[in-house]
Amino acid sequence: MDDITFAVLGTGGIGRRALEVSQHKDALTPVAACDRHGVAFDVDGLDVDELLAATEGNIDNEVATDGGNGTAAAEGGVKQHGEDRGVVASNQARPSDDPIQEVIDHGDRIDAVLLALPNYEHDFIPRTATRFVEGGYSGVLIDVLKRSRVIDMLDDRSDEFDDAGITFICGAGATPGLLTGAASLAAQSFVEVTDVDIWWGVGLKSGYEDNRGTVREDIAHLPEYDIETARELSDAEIEDIIDDHDGVIEFEDMEHADDVLLERAGVCDAEDVSVGGILDVRNDEKPTTTTVRVTGTTFDGETATNTFSLGDETSMEANVNGPALGYLKAGVRRNCAGEYGVFGPAELMPGF
Amino acid sequence: MDDITFAVLGTGGIGRRALEVSQHKDALTPVAACDRHGVAFDVDGLDVDELLAATEGNIDNEVATDGGNGTAAAEGGVKQHGEDRGVVASNQARPSDDPIQEVIDHGDRIDAVLLALPNYEHDFIPRTATRFVEGGYSGVLIDVLKRSRVIDMLDDRSDEFDDAGITFICGAGATPGLLTGAASLAAQSFVEVTDVDIWWGVGLKSGYEDNRGTVREDIAHLPEYDIETARELSDAEIEDIIDDHDGVIEFEDMEHADDVLLERAGVCDAEDVSVGGILDVRNDEKPTTTTVRVTGTTFDGETATNTFSLGDETSMEANVNGPALGYLKAGVRRNCAGEYGVFGPAELMPGF
Repeated sequence: MDDITFAVLGTGGIGRRALEVSQHKDALTPVAACDRHGVAFDVDGLDVDELLAATEGNIDNEVATDGGNGTAAAEGGVKQHGEDRGVVASNQARPSDDPIQEVIDHGDRIDAVLLALPNYEHDFIPRTATRFVEGGYSGVLIDVLKRSRVIDMLDDRSDEFDDAGITFICGAGATPGLLTGAASLAAQSFVEVTDVDIWWGVGLKSGYEDNRGTVREDIAHLPEYDIETARELSDAEIEDIIDDHDGVIEFEDMEHADDVLLERAGVCDAEDVSVGGILDVRNDEKPTTTTVRVTGTTFDGETATNTFSLGDETSMEANVNGPALGYLKAGVRRNCAGEYGVFGPAELMPGF
Repeated sequence: MDDITFAVLGTGGIGRRALEVSQHKDALTPVAACDRHGVAFDVDGLDVDELLAATEGNIDNEVATDGGNGTAAAEGGVKQHGEDRGVVASNQARPSDDPIQEVIDHGDRIDAVLLALPNYEHDFIPRTATRFVEGGYSGVLIDVLKRSRVIDMLDDRSDEFDDAGITFICGAGATPGLLTGAASLAAQSFVEVTDVDIWWGVGLKSGYEDNRGTVREDIAHLPEYDIETARELSDAEIEDIIDDHDGVIEFEDMEHADDVLLERAGVCDAEDVSVGGILDVRNDEKPTTTTVRVTGTTFDGETATNTFSLGDETSMEANVNGPALGYLKAGVRRNCAGEYGVFGPAELMPGF
């Protein structure tokens, strides 16, 4: 396959790390990166080192109402430095009133767009996808979301994607991306899968500042909150929640897209999937080992459990960005083959 | 994707189980099965239950010099019953002087051909592939071989496959198929993979009769033997070897295609892959847990090991046939997209 060009929408923790990790992948060229303040575009490939260095600490943690208009109220971006905010601090970027539209306008030079926008309202990414459809984009859109309901909203746009020639890959990060991929593979020993248990551990002390959006999204999974109420929380309120849990928050029966995505891929019924985990924002060590257990019945009538586990030293960032870029490449392959619509990561596995 | 039609060459343990497991997979229709004695063909789908019941115990363990001519000397097929030998015992089959050619002649109705022929000389499958090229076949050919050198012989035919429109998937069983797929997935946490350790356990007491070919092939991996000398062994000599090891044979540093296939897929260098395992032909319990350990460095400089392990209750057959049929479907997808040539299973993973 020829070199793949891609854009990153959002230069928070995930977007920045995706740019960084792409430097280690063959045949991947980042050509655009934007946040709400501006856009950097270079068809020959961005200078990722310059962009990351110039914007170091410029993480934009605002909760947007829309990524396209830049009118959202700031709730406290952290560690801003330099004259310009966010990506504009890079000498490759310039301010824009509508950075996403500028990416869309360059769409014919961009094979894939990574929507690295974790914590906006849950219809934000579907609405952004619609903007790409309306802007005449054909190619791959890929997100790293975790919410089951977003899949439904994307599915509602499936015909639009088909007509536009868009292949939308949803949930391509660590969870559900890497772990549902692993579940799909582990399921191959079985003719029937009866249970998929996904259990994750994240230690986020030193990565906390860069990943406040992800923490906010995780908090939305607690029984007392939902995505709307979590979005309304101030940073101080989030700190209070973290304090209440002594920095370690355990999640059970999360509304996590893993279930929907595994059912889509024909691995098992959504109700047979359970997702939980432990987040520790005061240690970098993982509080528990991230593990996928797939239990099923073999053709010869045995019951067994196949297991995939991630080394505790692998950071959340490492487990999000490698898979996201891998699935991005897989998505481009599908797109080139004329396969349009909405796909989960497990559907990109070898036809299982 | 529409229903995929496939043929099985060889109705030994692997071929039979592939037919059986395909009954549990969506959108897979077996339309042909052959051994050296005959061929069964039905474009509407074989009656797998009848075929398996009629040929139960008719495993053909002869070591052929060629699958196409039926002239090889018998070295003792086991448990023959019924008037006809092998697949011809099924009322769907008829004798043939050249069963493989009959499959080739029906090639326009067959999306994929599983070459379930483990223990012939190591150029047998490449030569069989050439027959398909010469016969005008375009579609998927897939094997479950383990030998690194076979890959090279297939690669030598890559241009022929390209011209013919053939997508050849090699090594798509448990090892290297399932386990290199797992290694490819596990590698996604890392920007550099430094070691892949594949360690398998097989307990084959009740499956021994059906899998003599596989045992013979494993013996060829012992330091004292190679594929040629193992092929010359009589069944009695193989029994002696097994007795010498008290039924439990341990293998280290095997010439196993995993290394070549992972290098092809860009996961790591071939020399960083080690493969070993333990075969116990006197117990059904696995003598050790089949495990893939992938060690690497993350983008943020950590070293870690991701692990994939198969439940001990999953039989070798379960771990061969599910993946083989999954990769078969993936191969058809690639073939439909115009991707021809030779692919390893790890190359069918999501673009990593």
